[in-house]
Amino acid sequence: MEILITNDDGIYAEGIYALATALKKAGNVTVVAPDTQRSAVGHAITITDPLRVTPARRNREFFGYASSGTPADCVKLGIKAIMKKRPDLVVSGINLGGNQAYNILYSGTVSGATEGALLGIPSIAISLDTFTKPDFGPAADFAVKLARQFKKRRLPPGTLLNVNLPNLPARKLKGVRVTNQSLTCFNDWFEKRTDPHGSTYYWMTGDYKPKDADLASDLNALRAGYVSITPIQFNLTDYKFIPELENWNLKL
Amino acid sequence: MEILITNDDGIYAEGIYALATALKKAGNVTVVAPDTQRSAVGHAITITDPLRVTPARRNREFFGYASSGTPADCVKLGIKAIMKKRPDLVVSGINLGGNQAYNILYSGTVSGATEGALLGIPSIAISLDTFTKPDFGPAADFAVKLARQFKKRRLPPGTLLNVNLPNLPARKLKGVRVTNQSLTCFNDWFEKRTDPHGSTYYWMTGDYKPKDADLASDLNALRAGYVSITPIQFNLTDYKFIPELENWNLKL
Repeated sequence: MEILITNDDGIYAEGIYALATALKKAGNVTVVAPDTQRSAVGHAITITDPLRVTPARRNREFFGYASSGTPADCVKLGIKAIMKKRPDLVVSGINLGGNQAYNILYSGTVSGATEGALLGIPSIAISLDTFTKPDFGPAADFAVKLARQFKKRRLPPGTLLNVNLPNLPARKLKGVRVTNQSLTCFNDWFEKRTDPHGSTYYWMTGDYKPKDADLASDLNALRAGYVSITPIQFNLTDYKFIPELENWNLKL
Repeated sequence: MEILITNDDGIYAEGIYALATALKKAGNVTVVAPDTQRSAVGHAITITDPLRVTPARRNREFFGYASSGTPADCVKLGIKAIMKKRPDLVVSGINLGGNQAYNILYSGTVSGATEGALLGIPSIAISLDTFTKPDFGPAADFAVKLARQFKKRRLPPGTLLNVNLPNLPARKLKGVRVTNQSLTCFNDWFEKRTDPHGSTYYWMTGDYKPKDADLASDLNALRAGYVSITPIQFNLTDYKFIPELENWNLKL
């Protein structure tokens, strides 16, 4: 099994190292990842600048290819310019910080896996829901388990798996739940400050206030201590609203 | 009607000027837009840097607020830090270049309108499908027509309108079609080059090869000379696949 790995925390992050090391148990691993942190880049691709690729070493060994691009760029580069064989699986992560609810839209981690799915390859995004004291072990082990499923299982075209784990030791994880994306909005606001030179600037900050409480959503399953797996897809059309919109007065 | 306008080509682009000027016929306009071009940023938000806002002038008059952030940041800033009243409508554009098919995922223009929809405000993204010799007039006129619809019409929560126009004079437009997002993939590849110093770099390039031919899709409606309106939404869950995924062997 040929596995392409990327992330958005950068090729020198702890999470991608744990992931790549573990996935060697499931297949041949190629790492192509951003040369620095690219969090919250959304599904960006680089069209205005040329992309560069350089070998990256970790623990005195060749680890993978560092790119000047985004996670989506890295997946494109891996498949179309670097790997000799087309990968059987793309895995993006392990991200430091959860990617659930509407966070999915902002997520570089998910965008790496989305790019894989758009290119017709089974793809997984995997994230650890913490910003402090991460233990990537259980997520790395779960990635191996999930990767092995792809020897016999298939995803619908255009669908990928968005996996999130709470930051708990393996024995404290309550189980695995297949979930939907929570429709809870991030409740954000700006802190207005003045710099030492008298100019105003703003920091964005906020939190989630879950609307729904049932374990069917990624947000709540995670908070309750479960591993969450959400199948997601990128046909954004709101088909249900088309008939009503056709009745608007839109003649030129 | 209070209207918040943003874009991803930057506050000094021609398209946003045509849009803001036209929309004054429909309501009070506030412009908050990136201080430089932010194309293909995807749905990025800025959490690692403070955001700055400065007044921008065009034609010797105050035009709007230029921000160091992305289109999504601009919409958040407009609603939560700049406008005194909550807007009744968010319009993002007029983008130089179409945002159809999977381009929607990469689009800063669409992400500006998405942010409006996430914050519960009716939102429109509007783009002109050309990179050369743009005539923004018909798109600006259509934006006014569409904005006026919102005096009596509503969108479902979380749904926004993604509008694209071919670059044709008004008399040559064939009509308006309510469409779905085309599932045609961008067929991209890398051109490998060597810089004057002997290092390798890559340019991404590519084109669309439509799979489908019917006018129900945004891509084909546009190519046939129609204005395309697609209702889009951001619950990405692939509900149909959940029962099958629950049968995978995913026990911890």
